[in-house]
Amino acid sequence: MGSTDLRAAGRAYLAIPGPSVMPDAVLQAMHRPSPNIYGGELKDLTESVIPDLARVARTRHNVAIYIANGHGAWEAALSNTLTPGDRVLVPASGAFAHGWAEMASGLGLEATVLDFGLHAPFDMARVAEALAADTDHSIKAVLGVHVDTSTSIRNDIAALRACLDEVGHPALLMADCIASLGCDRFEMDDWGVDVMVTACQKGLMVPAGVSFVFFNDKAAAARKALPRVSRYWDWAPRAEPEVFYQYFGGTAPTQHMFGLRAALDLIHGEGMEQVWTRHARLARAIWAACERWGDVEGEGLRLNVLDPNLRSHAVTALSLPSPNGTELRSWLEETLGLTLGISLGMAPSDSPEWHGHFRLGHMGHVNGHMILGLLGGIEAGLQALSIPHGGGALAAAAEVVAGKAG
Amino acid sequence: MGSTDLRAAGRAYLAIPGPSVMPDAVLQAMHRPSPNIYGGELKDLTESVIPDLARVARTRHNVAIYIANGHGAWEAALSNTLTPGDRVLVPASGAFAHGWAEMASGLGLEATVLDFGLHAPFDMARVAEALAADTDHSIKAVLGVHVDTSTSIRNDIAALRACLDEVGHPALLMADCIASLGCDRFEMDDWGVDVMVTACQKGLMVPAGVSFVFFNDKAAAARKALPRVSRYWDWAPRAEPEVFYQYFGGTAPTQHMFGLRAALDLIHGEGMEQVWTRHARLARAIWAACERWGDVEGEGLRLNVLDPNLRSHAVTALSLPSPNGTELRSWLEETLGLTLGISLGMAPSDSPEWHGHFRLGHMGHVNGHMILGLLGGIEAGLQALSIPHGGGALAAAAEVVAGKAG
Amino acid sequence: MGSTDLRAAGRAYLAIPGPSVMPDAVLQAMHRPSPNIYGGELKDLTESVIPDLARVARTRHNVAIYIANGHGAWEAALSNTLTPGDRVLVPASGAFAHGWAEMASGLGLEATVLDFGLHAPFDMARVAEALAADTDHSIKAVLGVHVDTSTSIRNDIAALRACLDEVGHPALLMADCIASLGCDRFEMDDWGVDVMVTACQKGLMVPAGVSFVFFNDKAAAARKALPRVSRYWDWAPRAEPEVFYQYFGGTAPTQHMFGLRAALDLIHGEGMEQVWTRHARLARAIWAACERWGDVEGEGLRLNVLDPNLRSHAVTALSLPSPNGTELRSWLEETLGLTLGISLGMAPSDSPEWHGHFRLGHMGHVNGHMILGLLGGIEAGLQALSIPHGGGALAAAAEVVAGKAG
Amino acid sequence: MGSTDLRAAGRAYLAIPGPSVMPDAVLQAMHRPSPNIYGGELKDLTESVIPDLARVARTRHNVAIYIANGHGAWEAALSNTLTPGDRVLVPASGAFAHGWAEMASGLGLEATVLDFGLHAPFDMARVAEALAADTDHSIKAVLGVHVDTSTSIRNDIAALRACLDEVGHPALLMADCIASLGCDRFEMDDWGVDVMVTACQKGLMVPAGVSFVFFNDKAAAARKALPRVSRYWDWAPRAEPEVFYQYFGGTAPTQHMFGLRAALDLIHGEGMEQVWTRHARLARAIWAACERWGDVEGEGLRLNVLDPNLRSHAVTALSLPSPNGTELRSWLEETLGLTLGISLGMAPSDSPEWHGHFRLGHMGHVNGHMILGLLGGIEAGLQALSIPHGGGALAAAAEVVAGKAG
Repeated sequence: MGSTDLRAAGRAYLAIPGPSVMPDAVLQAMHRPSPNIYGGELKDLTESVIPDLARVARTRHNVAIYIANGHGAWEAALSNTLTPGDRVLVPASGAFAHGWAEMASGLGLEATVLDFGLHAPFDMARVAEALAADTDHSIKAVLGVHVDTSTSIRNDIAALRACLDEVGHPALLMADCIASLGCDRFEMDDWGVDVMVTACQKGLMVPAGVSFVFFNDKAAAARKALPRVSRYWDWAPRAEPEVFYQYFGGTAPTQHMFGLRAALDLIHGEGMEQVWTRHARLARAIWAACERWGDVEGEGLRLNVLDPNLRSHAVTALSLPSPNGTELRSWLEETLGLTLGISLGMAPSDSPEWHGHFRLGHMGHVNGHMILGLLGGIEAGLQALSIPHGGGALAAAAEVVAGKAG
Repeated sequence: MGSTDLRAAGRAYLAIPGPSVMPDAVLQAMHRPSPNIYGGELKDLTESVIPDLARVARTRHNVAIYIANGHGAWEAALSNTLTPGDRVLVPASGAFAHGWAEMASGLGLEATVLDFGLHAPFDMARVAEALAADTDHSIKAVLGVHVDTSTSIRNDIAALRACLDEVGHPALLMADCIASLGCDRFEMDDWGVDVMVTACQKGLMVPAGVSFVFFNDKAAAARKALPRVSRYWDWAPRAEPEVFYQYFGGTAPTQHMFGLRAALDLIHGEGMEQVWTRHARLARAIWAACERWGDVEGEGLRLNVLDPNLRSHAVTALSLPSPNGTELRSWLEETLGLTLGISLGMAPSDSPEWHGHFRLGHMGHVNGHMILGLLGGIEAGLQALSIPHGGGALAAAAEVVAGKAG
Repeated sequence: MGSTDLRAAGRAYLAIPGPSVMPDAVLQAMHRPSPNIYGGELKDLTESVIPDLARVARTRHNVAIYIANGHGAWEAALSNTLTPGDRVLVPASGAFAHGWAEMASGLGLEATVLDFGLHAPFDMARVAEALAADTDHSIKAVLGVHVDTSTSIRNDIAALRACLDEVGHPALLMADCIASLGCDRFEMDDWGVDVMVTACQKGLMVPAGVSFVFFNDKAAAARKALPRVSRYWDWAPRAEPEVFYQYFGGTAPTQHMFGLRAALDLIHGEGMEQVWTRHARLARAIWAACERWGDVEGEGLRLNVLDPNLRSHAVTALSLPSPNGTELRSWLEETLGLTLGISLGMAPSDSPEWHGHFRLGHMGHVNGHMILGLLGGIEAGLQALSIPHGGGALAAAAEVVAGKAG
Repeated sequence: MGSTDLRAAGRAYLAIPGPSVMPDAVLQAMHRPSPNIYGGELKDLTESVIPDLARVARTRHNVAIYIANGHGAWEAALSNTLTPGDRVLVPASGAFAHGWAEMASGLGLEATVLDFGLHAPFDMARVAEALAADTDHSIKAVLGVHVDTSTSIRNDIAALRACLDEVGHPALLMADCIASLGCDRFEMDDWGVDVMVTACQKGLMVPAGVSFVFFNDKAAAARKALPRVSRYWDWAPRAEPEVFYQYFGGTAPTQHMFGLRAALDLIHGEGMEQVWTRHARLARAIWAACERWGDVEGEGLRLNVLDPNLRSHAVTALSLPSPNGTELRSWLEETLGLTLGISLGMAPSDSPEWHGHFRLGHMGHVNGHMILGLLGGIEAGLQALSIPHGGGALAAAAEVVAGKAG
């Protein structure tokens, strides 16, 4: 009665923290001939997409679309507002904050990282302290990763704004919502965010390849004050194009735009509040299961973030005693066609510890039977591999999905 | 904390007993221009499909492809072997046996139904008795539904052959494997089946629209003895075409053939034995959960077939106290995008009892996370609707998927 | 400077008389998961399709949908109205009339064929004569192929009705519009047609696999007078289903219905009159080119039908001195990816003459640049193979497309 | 007999100079779920794509893949080799040379443009002169657009290398092959090109969204000598990644990679020499038609480039007396679904002259019937709009396709 009886069949499920599972409607919309890129259908569609993107970001301000991944959007945000030698403050609760800081260094900026480790959100007191100490306002921007995909910590971006305001510091507030947008509540204008970067392959449910930078008037003014911005990254013509190709700094990402239109239809058809509520419910179902599994003597399954209020609704970082994480991932992929996310940054990738960590993506096009299938698969894997775990996990998760708990 | 928080999002899951979930590779292969229907690529592909279909049916004999659904294949099988006034014996353990018998009546045949109710397989003693009583061999064929999709009973087709042989009755043995092929083990030649009918939208994982009749030399001889067979149903030119269009009695089902090729590649890539093993394992996981749910005082969830040895691995018929079945189906569809099968024939469709019955399809492109998601959804639904049910169902199912039980 | 420089690249063009080129929207609509077959989306869609099909057929009466090809629709039409021993009159102007007559024979009907050869339409005087001679009304139906795909002759179906009326003969008038529907004008009710059969893979622009029988009250009465109709072919429950599956006599052709909905949207978006006008214009462009090519001394390219008023707007049968037809087809397929239709029935397929004949399909999803590309390819082929042909063909065709001639 | 009889139906044909028509196999390959981005199938596929890209570029050296359009690739090439204040020499024979020069200015480089107008290729004598005058080697790179899409002039990149060599100038030679790669012969290594930029939506037949920079060791050395390269543009980790995501500087363009694999299979299945030969033949067919159309008294249709040896095989720039160009484009789009390219840079877009210019794209997935359909459409449009034109154009083009001329 070997567990390999089930290998190599059935629908695959990619439960990594991006790219996420895509709706059929998105892929359907992309499977079509290229349109004219100088007008007509594509132009009308693009103009319809802009306000619908802004509705997802909860902003009345501007958006620039980039053919690029999230790393490109990071670079774009910095390139439009800062100049070599400028300083940025980067509170960090995971690998992606460090990544953005490195991207800044690559542009000749001076990045000051406030590292809060891999299990804690930004310590606002320390951020405020750093800002207060910067009396000559050499810090030009604070870069805050909303949800760090590596740790699944969700930071309080509104509180970051409050820090700046309390200290009276004029730095721009930039938020990275690559992992969180369309999953965790985010309110660009209400929270006082000046620049927000995101990408299309997570909560926006489109194949990787397009990213976005939203920016308000203050950020636009910073752009105008720069002596020069690289033509490709310059957000000004992208946000206010005189001719159509300027939306994209050249040839449009034609197929992606059709996919994006379909995805935005789904998102706004469901409604932003409902989208957030759904993600919250499904995240709580995952946590409920994880907490039961972790209820064993000795070292067992651990959620990376202890306080539920600090956990993302889009991604969950977990660990098992090494090398059980890697073994579990392998078993699930080979036996059930279920792919979990590897760890990023929780341990050196060549260390034994790395093989304990893994992540679950639960962003975008997900629902109750998918999440219960994901958790059911993990339960089966824990059993198959004889990894110690507590009982009642699936029932607890189902209770949350049922609306009877959590 | 309403359960409607989760409505209208995520990947839909159609868990009805056909059409089944289709592999992406099948839909991909069908999304292409129509080919020439007089030769070339389509002709080569069709010729490659024929032996691979026979490998699924476990036969060295003939197959005729029909553009038709399963009802068409029923009619084709009868039209090629019987003539108005001929008698057929139809042991019945569900609605589809009755359906086939009615199809026979529609062709002017005299159908004698041996009804074994909705919870039991064929009673071979009674079949043998009926055959023995037919001393003048007026019965020309015995029509046996392998798995009756309405009740999920799996009949022993080899035992039906033994009945005929014991009595020395020359009637043709016909099997309906529409629900079972590619899910439950079936051995056409070894079990002595003369004619087998099936369709493409279940274990063969292709969109509905094509069906198949397999037949051996004895059945071919019966065909030749008939004065006339309708041109559309005539299997002779389809099985041994002189020109290509005769495979299909006219224009080929072009897109379906590309889909079928992709599906057969998946099936034989996995291997017939492995395909059956997988379905068996997943069915046992479902039963394990159902048995736990049913473990309540009073009336609870019931598997329609008590003896596991008599249950299909492709479909499971269930009931709850009415109207809980219908309520559960509705809740799952609206809240999780998960569609269960309605009952067919377990109760009049306008009766209150009907709303207790429902069915699960688990045929074809299924695996452990899908089935655990299906079961997880049901668990959530039972909780949400406060339908009494026993505990431990999901853990029990996961244990079977893990290979630790069942 | 060999002509094989161009082989094996670019978009293929299947210019055979069915299956026709399909719109992207049709294939897109079919690339989706199977729906529930007991209600919901598919039921609504099917109910919306019925009246839109009737609008294409120009009838207020009934339609039955069959999972079958055109041959199946032929058999269905006969099976619902006639009984073995009944007589049918089949005026013939091509192979498909003979095919329908054979289909009738296969059902035990007595088919009287009036053969008008391969270049002429029905001779109404001879049809009237045959009907008048049938004083005891043993002829129960007249089977008229509107456009015979083999010869591209278009018959006058309204005149066939006039024949019946003049003689006062009560036989049913059945029309085969498989090649013509959605291409050549057809008015079922105005022309007094009792039964019309068609299929989906030509003017309806959907992959082969679904066909249709339209019938009026007189035909419905004939059905009711029959002692028995096979369950699969019985149109009564298909046209007036009590439960949804009866529309399809079993499982629905799920993917095809989505494709059909998309195709009907395109057709009615364009408008029936416009659809016919477009096909007429494009057919005239083809004829204009063919007439120029044929303007050579000795034997050259010939249109099968001399009188333009008798030519179909959906298909054109042609010939060249043998074996130039086959050589031209091969060159076009290998060099340009352009596939012309082989001849059916114009000569024995094992005769040298057969290699002179070929056909062009110009049905459904076609427009001016496609037809001019088809003709341009033929011109290139005639030149490459040094087949004698007159000049000015492409310019003449372009003139028609331009609206400046023809 | 209005020409609008044909509106709004049939297969659209986008005959603009990019994006080009895409093969079905490419779109099919992209219509699939997202893969894991950390290994497995996508990793293997990416590693297989790298050498096949190099085979298209005819280089043994390096390639960096960018999620970006061609403008991004321009910026990437410059960012890896030059630093603000560096000088580039840009011989120009069309708008894209000026565009690249502007991109350079945007990065703080000093661009010296040698403008050779809109009808002539680079004047190598003047290029050599400029290089010779640069005795202190302040020019760090020569940016040569191989085929300028705006004018359809094809420049001699090997001759540009000879200029550099003759003068003994050490500047890098960069070529823009965005329009030409996979259409016009290009030999990176044999022609001594140090850096080549291209994009995927033209000869590579993939939806817009990915671009490429190829570079040799000399260019790699220039990169290493720079103090800093932006992380997104840095080609070093992309060309020699230590971990998989570095190929893409972050998340992979998942769907594009599957499409690219399919496109490269088609290209190398046909063979580079054959691909070039096919494009050459089809281009000559277009020119033959254009020359006939232009054979009128007074001002008529004009090919932008007089000397056939200087014309691209991928794109053709044309003009008619204004406003006939725009009128022709409109008529073709509305009546035939055929879209020609607008002019870029041949006249101010708000000038009356602009409406005379237009362009034809004939790159990538094209063949004889497509091109003859394109030309046939234009012929029809010229007639419909009574635009003066010479006769015999289509026959002349067909003769070239036939291999009998040109």
